[in-house]
Amino acid sequence: MAAPAQPAPVRSHETRPPGANGATLTEDEIFAAHEGGKLSTGLPFEISTQRALAIAYTPGVAQVSRAIAGDETLARQYTWASRLVAVVSDGTAVLGLGDIGPRAALPVMEGKAALFKGFAGLDAIPVVLDTTDIDEIVETLVRLRPTFGAVNLEDVSAPRCFELERRLIQALDCPVMHDDQHGTAVVVLAALRGACLALGREMSSLKVAITGAGAAGVACAKILLAAGLADVTVLDSRGIIHRGRENLNQVKEDLAARTNPEGRTGGLAEALDGADVLIGVSSAAVPERLVATMKPDGIVFALSNPDPEIHPVLAARHVAVVATGRSDFPNQINNVLAFPGIFKGALDAGARYISEAMKLAAAEAIAEVATENLAPDHIVPSPLDARVAPAVAKAVAAAAHRD
Amino acid sequence: MAAPAQPAPVRSHETRPPGANGATLTEDEIFAAHEGGKLSTGLPFEISTQRALAIAYTPGVAQVSRAIAGDETLARQYTWASRLVAVVSDGTAVLGLGDIGPRAALPVMEGKAALFKGFAGLDAIPVVLDTTDIDEIVETLVRLRPTFGAVNLEDVSAPRCFELERRLIQALDCPVMHDDQHGTAVVVLAALRGACLALGREMSSLKVAITGAGAAGVACAKILLAAGLADVTVLDSRGIIHRGRENLNQVKEDLAARTNPEGRTGGLAEALDGADVLIGVSSAAVPERLVATMKPDGIVFALSNPDPEIHPVLAARHVAVVATGRSDFPNQINNVLAFPGIFKGALDAGARYISEAMKLAAAEAIAEVATENLAPDHIVPSPLDARVAPAVAKAVAAAAHRD
Repeated sequence: MAAPAQPAPVRSHETRPPGANGATLTEDEIFAAHEGGKLSTGLPFEISTQRALAIAYTPGVAQVSRAIAGDETLARQYTWASRLVAVVSDGTAVLGLGDIGPRAALPVMEGKAALFKGFAGLDAIPVVLDTTDIDEIVETLVRLRPTFGAVNLEDVSAPRCFELERRLIQALDCPVMHDDQHGTAVVVLAALRGACLALGREMSSLKVAITGAGAAGVACAKILLAAGLADVTVLDSRGIIHRGRENLNQVKEDLAARTNPEGRTGGLAEALDGADVLIGVSSAAVPERLVATMKPDGIVFALSNPDPEIHPVLAARHVAVVATGRSDFPNQINNVLAFPGIFKGALDAGARYISEAMKLAAAEAIAEVATENLAPDHIVPSPLDARVAPAVAKAVAAAAHRD
Repeated sequence: MAAPAQPAPVRSHETRPPGANGATLTEDEIFAAHEGGKLSTGLPFEISTQRALAIAYTPGVAQVSRAIAGDETLARQYTWASRLVAVVSDGTAVLGLGDIGPRAALPVMEGKAALFKGFAGLDAIPVVLDTTDIDEIVETLVRLRPTFGAVNLEDVSAPRCFELERRLIQALDCPVMHDDQHGTAVVVLAALRGACLALGREMSSLKVAITGAGAAGVACAKILLAAGLADVTVLDSRGIIHRGRENLNQVKEDLAARTNPEGRTGGLAEALDGADVLIGVSSAAVPERLVATMKPDGIVFALSNPDPEIHPVLAARHVAVVATGRSDFPNQINNVLAFPGIFKGALDAGARYISEAMKLAAAEAIAEVATENLAPDHIVPSPLDARVAPAVAKAVAAAAHRD
């Protein structure tokens, strides 16, 4: 990949520049933009006449309520709920900040809701919960069910997030997706497809190492297996996950059974030696000398934010494609490429859940948009590419109808 | 009062004309306006650049989350929650339609949310609950607490609504108001003040009969007592509520203790005989011959919608002021005069509850706006009068600061 002329030094605890111009975001600018929050409600028509008041509220609204009472499916047509995404968090794993609670999580959920609107035209509301008990969260959303049309689960700590998502999918007859898992996984798969096309490599034969067995790591492993890759190995803070390891939780036991076909043991050195792909989704640094042990024409996705596992300029010395989560380097892997279109497609199709096929279709659609000017430094579309969300929505809706 | 030249005949099961022009709302018009729902979310700024994306979402938002994690009071400044009203219903008493459930209640809650925005600039979201258990509703809203800044309780059946409101006020450190109770009561008090001013009568000496001991009836009785009236009598479907009656629930027992100082017994005939004011907030019809037994210069508020307890033209033969809930007659008593300003004032002031003093201040403010061109057929401002909500908000905020 082409490195920028003036690579930013690796720094901690500072907000990175959002654009190629290198101008760092200032605190003042960020806080000023957040004044009063980042979301508002709006009306589809002005209520400035008796007639409008009588239509929007009493007595007119009674006819609509009576119609829905007679046929609940009409709620889909005559209320906002069928296009409303609840962005739900308990604040236990907010960005890289950890368990900072529901109030501090709210700006993130507002931002997410704003992105749903901005990229897919979906209405979305933050729902931040003052409980971290999984039973209580499920119970709460079941009670709220008539209020919304889908649930985007966000920033819930692992491994709780796996059980919570599973339980919610079971309990709710509407699309539920933990974006930190599947949004990331979908974009990673799309980017890997793009990288393979750019390099002329066969995806299914790649040997992949994933550092991190949290929400993103587990979901990346699963989607790569679903996409036909055979050799995927996952590492957590204790090293490679393999069948012989003790004290694995249920999620990691499943991973051990389905990944690491060679039965490797050890740590990062053993995992990267001869690997084709490194996907970094933990914040643990990856030394340059280990990246140097990867096979030729390798691929590194160093996705931790704001500090990638390895600086992209260093990684680019040893591999053919480098991607990060940052906007100031090429190949930005950003969930916003996936979640707006996935939910739009699912809601448009009236889907009751988000299937593996719908996620794979989303990844295909994202990769497809990138093919136009594919190159090692352009394996995914820009997060701002307005073609992506409609393309993803269309593909996801079609996959939902096939299900 | 001046009756309209062409009074509409009293009809049932039809949507009444919204304006003086007499054009009836059509079904097509109502359903077309509800297509896709009546609410949407909006963004305060476009997310069309990397810079905007980095400010609204990662990495910029992390600074705001970190700040709130350090000082939770900053959530008030940097999220929408402090100006967000949750319009909460379990769908057990929707308009005059009864227990039609949360999905059928949703159009009403959307309408209410739209009015909050349209009249007071407050963001509001419908929260419709798939449970009618009071413990569960309280528990759910406690868990949701960081999501919103206030609760407008709506269309919850009596007498459950009294306990639910009391429990929520106890459990939540934010303004909670059941609008069917207090919104109605505030506007009734304002209208009664206006009527007294227009007729040159002393309010405190009025003898008042209230038909209906549901949400509105009980709240009207209480606010009139709080405003200094001494002779208030309430009737339910079994007649006058008095100390000697058996099998009264807790709410009615309280009413029996505080109202009906003369200890009247019997029914509507006994209550109206010699009364100055009739406030109708049940749908039970009031015969003209009983209104004829009221004192001279009487006042009738026949508030049932769409069919007033007595047709205003018939009532006007016997009393000096008639008000209804309908927009096609003078003196429309509509909650929208109260709730947007009450919540705006409470949220502006950072109030943790809505006190009796705040409600009285709201009524004063509404009455004040009407004084400009006061007359027997203009005792309250028009629901569309844009001066009302800001005036109410200001008065309520001032009362909150005094508390």
